[in-house]
Amino acid sequence: MSDELLLQNRRTLLAGAAAAGLFAPGLAFAQSGDMAAVRRAAEQGYDASVKRIQDWIALPSIAAENLNMEEGCRYVMDLARDAGFQHVERIPTDGHPGVFATLDVGAKRWMGIYFMYDVKQYDPAEWSSPPLEARIVDKPGFGKVIMGRGAVNQKGPEATFLAALHALRAAGRKPPVNIALVCEGEEEIGSPNFRQIVTRPNVLAALKKCEGVVIPAGWQSPSNGGVSVNLGAKGIAELELVASGAKWGRGPKTDIHSSQKAIVDSPAWRLIQALQTLVTPDGNTPVVDGFFDKVRPLTPREKELLALAARQMSEADAKVALGVDRWIDDLPWDKALERLASQPTINIEGLVSGYTGPGGKTILPGRAVAKIDMRLVPNQTMEDAVAKLRAHLDKRGFSDIEVNVSGGYDPTETDENSRLIRAEIATYEKRGVPVTVYPRLAGSWPGAVFTSPPVSLPAGQFGLGHGSGAHAPDEYYVIESSNPKVEGLVGATMGYVDFLYEIASIR
Amino acid sequence: MSDELLLQNRRTLLAGAAAAGLFAPGLAFAQSGDMAAVRRAAEQGYDASVKRIQDWIALPSIAAENLNMEEGCRYVMDLARDAGFQHVERIPTDGHPGVFATLDVGAKRWMGIYFMYDVKQYDPAEWSSPPLEARIVDKPGFGKVIMGRGAVNQKGPEATFLAALHALRAAGRKPPVNIALVCEGEEEIGSPNFRQIVTRPNVLAALKKCEGVVIPAGWQSPSNGGVSVNLGAKGIAELELVASGAKWGRGPKTDIHSSQKAIVDSPAWRLIQALQTLVTPDGNTPVVDGFFDKVRPLTPREKELLALAARQMSEADAKVALGVDRWIDDLPWDKALERLASQPTINIEGLVSGYTGPGGKTILPGRAVAKIDMRLVPNQTMEDAVAKLRAHLDKRGFSDIEVNVSGGYDPTETDENSRLIRAEIATYEKRGVPVTVYPRLAGSWPGAVFTSPPVSLPAGQFGLGHGSGAHAPDEYYVIESSNPKVEGLVGATMGYVDFLYEIASIR
Repeated sequence: MSDELLLQNRRTLLAGAAAAGLFAPGLAFAQSGDMAAVRRAAEQGYDASVKRIQDWIALPSIAAENLNMEEGCRYVMDLARDAGFQHVERIPTDGHPGVFATLDVGAKRWMGIYFMYDVKQYDPAEWSSPPLEARIVDKPGFGKVIMGRGAVNQKGPEATFLAALHALRAAGRKPPVNIALVCEGEEEIGSPNFRQIVTRPNVLAALKKCEGVVIPAGWQSPSNGGVSVNLGAKGIAELELVASGAKWGRGPKTDIHSSQKAIVDSPAWRLIQALQTLVTPDGNTPVVDGFFDKVRPLTPREKELLALAARQMSEADAKVALGVDRWIDDLPWDKALERLASQPTINIEGLVSGYTGPGGKTILPGRAVAKIDMRLVPNQTMEDAVAKLRAHLDKRGFSDIEVNVSGGYDPTETDENSRLIRAEIATYEKRGVPVTVYPRLAGSWPGAVFTSPPVSLPAGQFGLGHGSGAHAPDEYYVIESSNPKVEGLVGATMGYVDFLYEIASIR
Repeated sequence: MSDELLLQNRRTLLAGAAAAGLFAPGLAFAQSGDMAAVRRAAEQGYDASVKRIQDWIALPSIAAENLNMEEGCRYVMDLARDAGFQHVERIPTDGHPGVFATLDVGAKRWMGIYFMYDVKQYDPAEWSSPPLEARIVDKPGFGKVIMGRGAVNQKGPEATFLAALHALRAAGRKPPVNIALVCEGEEEIGSPNFRQIVTRPNVLAALKKCEGVVIPAGWQSPSNGGVSVNLGAKGIAELELVASGAKWGRGPKTDIHSSQKAIVDSPAWRLIQALQTLVTPDGNTPVVDGFFDKVRPLTPREKELLALAARQMSEADAKVALGVDRWIDDLPWDKALERLASQPTINIEGLVSGYTGPGGKTILPGRAVAKIDMRLVPNQTMEDAVAKLRAHLDKRGFSDIEVNVSGGYDPTETDENSRLIRAEIATYEKRGVPVTVYPRLAGSWPGAVFTSPPVSLPAGQFGLGHGSGAHAPDEYYVIESSNPKVEGLVGATMGYVDFLYEIASIR
């Protein structure tokens, strides 16, 4: 969950400090007697739940390296069958396969769950604990954690959701809702084929019955246990702009000696020239022709939620966490958060040309690349934004500059009044977990696959518990929490149980 | 001889094809009888001369890695003593030591010789023959070559010059001129301390007596045996322009998640903005304030030599060699060569920011770097050009952008009518070697150390023979030439002998 997860971690961190106490603890569950039995079952299943996470981590599937993809797919199928799913199906795609599974207990409502079975690449040399051994480590301030690649992104939370199904069964109960599981193995490469999975007729038919789709998450703030409920996220288009002598017909086709600059055109200078037409001179606002045409301004409710978030979240903490002294235009915090949620961006992720090592090398490079991401807000689309960028460059004579799109997806939005969102908030509130309702993540995730036609469902993240280190060394997921405000594995398991009951019963 | 050598190789390649026959072979030496004895001595010394190159290659000195620097310095001192230099002195500098040596035979005139004992870094995995073993390899079309790091850059040609001194002594003759040798070990890192060596009082005093200074070279064109005699070279300033959140006080101090672009300034965009103020929109002409103030236009004689060169050199070959379809502004060949010699440049050697690997990574980089070289023509100076760049950026509000100079030197010029240049041309002509007199290399070398005060001497390259692959794998130097137009080790040795006699006798 590349982009979104990192952001989510940041967000809950920021949200946490100030959000405590905003929402009063809710009432105990109506089913509290039954819940006690389920909780006992979850506790009795703890060792098996831990092992389920560890065993899964030991099998890394990495789409970019075509590593263990069929194995990873089959593993999820086994996990689903083991958790009680009656129908479990491998779904082929143009890339790596996904999984569709249903657990139909004859309940009135259906709930959708999204899994990913792939993990991010890792370099064992950077880890303090071998990334595939999933060792249990004492992490001061957090408690016992499983450390390994995929611990929080996303196997730990996913396995915790499965632990909830195991606990229900062990306690002699059926889930209160039917469950449709969709799983892909290409999340870390941008979910290029996931739409093929959700639009398979039988998969789509099952999803259409669902109240919504959640991805299991474990992002409680260590400071106060707080979580965010996000009503959407920006879209993203990732691409490379490439200037080259080969395409341009001017300049060198390879790197040549820099003295030739006197008579040979420079693709690097050409790239600079093209880049500077894309944004305002301060680098902060896209000026690509028509870029803002489809942008929907924030609604009054979105502004209200952002104003609330501005009061809940610590600007000082945010600046420290980001290593930033001031926001764009020296905006005050509330205006900065409005801009964060509402402003589409064109960002330079990287620049690569010619010699990139220490010191210098006297070459005139034949090629220059800007790695770009464009963050999109409703109602922009990835396709339209890329087309506008292409047209903008063409109009200015930069037809030779390649626009090589590597991935991305549209913005996603979910109705605050949907049962999914209301059930999330209710579940958190009843446990006394501070909640920040956030109108739109500035990060991105492929939620639009669910929220846009033909699936057209609410979608979001849900989960208690805590982990961090996605895409980084020493990724971890808390299994025994030493922090009273943060749930361990059993508490997080019960969070999913509660959430399923909430979905089943909410008006 | 980083920059200049690569250029020189290019130049002779370009010059070669068309230069044949321009200069008629000269008369035989007056001293032809003696010369035959010297040649016999050179032939008898062949094995020792080959071994001298091989043994030297086996000891790589690399300043950037502080590898074998004292050893390399002592090695040159031994080589000099062995070749007959009576005074041999280690010259300390703020960096690595150099060598000063004199061979005073009581002749009327003195000649200066420049050596470097350092070599470029190498990766043995890229070589077809181990780079320190200096194996003798058959190279089709060239003959027997020594393959190894430093073979042509610059140990082979330097050792060939020493072979000339050995041959003279073996033939019972004194050199016809006294010789002052200056040697540094930091050429490949831009000669940062070489001026300290040449301005030592005793070194300077010896150099002041010289007709000029040459660096031994082996750059005969394989196509016709032609060489260039260069009357100067552009200067160069190499530097990094660095935009960073740390210096700017805006933007992030490290790489942060790219979603934050909506509220956080971008050092990468700032660098783009600063860069585009430095050159015309086509990227071809510096517009740094005052950059051209000190530029001296080409003289009528320089234009005449360039027009001659344009007729001697093949434009088609040049375009193929460079992989370039057209020159800047679609200039014709003669105008392109004028621009090559006369135009100062600001070139992007490299761009580095944020994520530079395959695909994308959603970060907002905290730092962006443009590696720049500025090529300077008389009467620009490196110091002045850098100061003007700094002032230009400051005036436009880019005071936060660092200008980190890593090396460089002023342009260098040598009078066409100096004894040094006339002796070079005469030596070549007498052997029937096609000569292109070139007013100014577009590349750079630290010749200004010699040509500017306080040394103020003519300086240039001299040498017959052939080698290539400086800074590249499989660097080689021809020892037995299968090409009748290109000299092998003995012929190149005799070239130095001839040249010393020419210097001794020319009016």
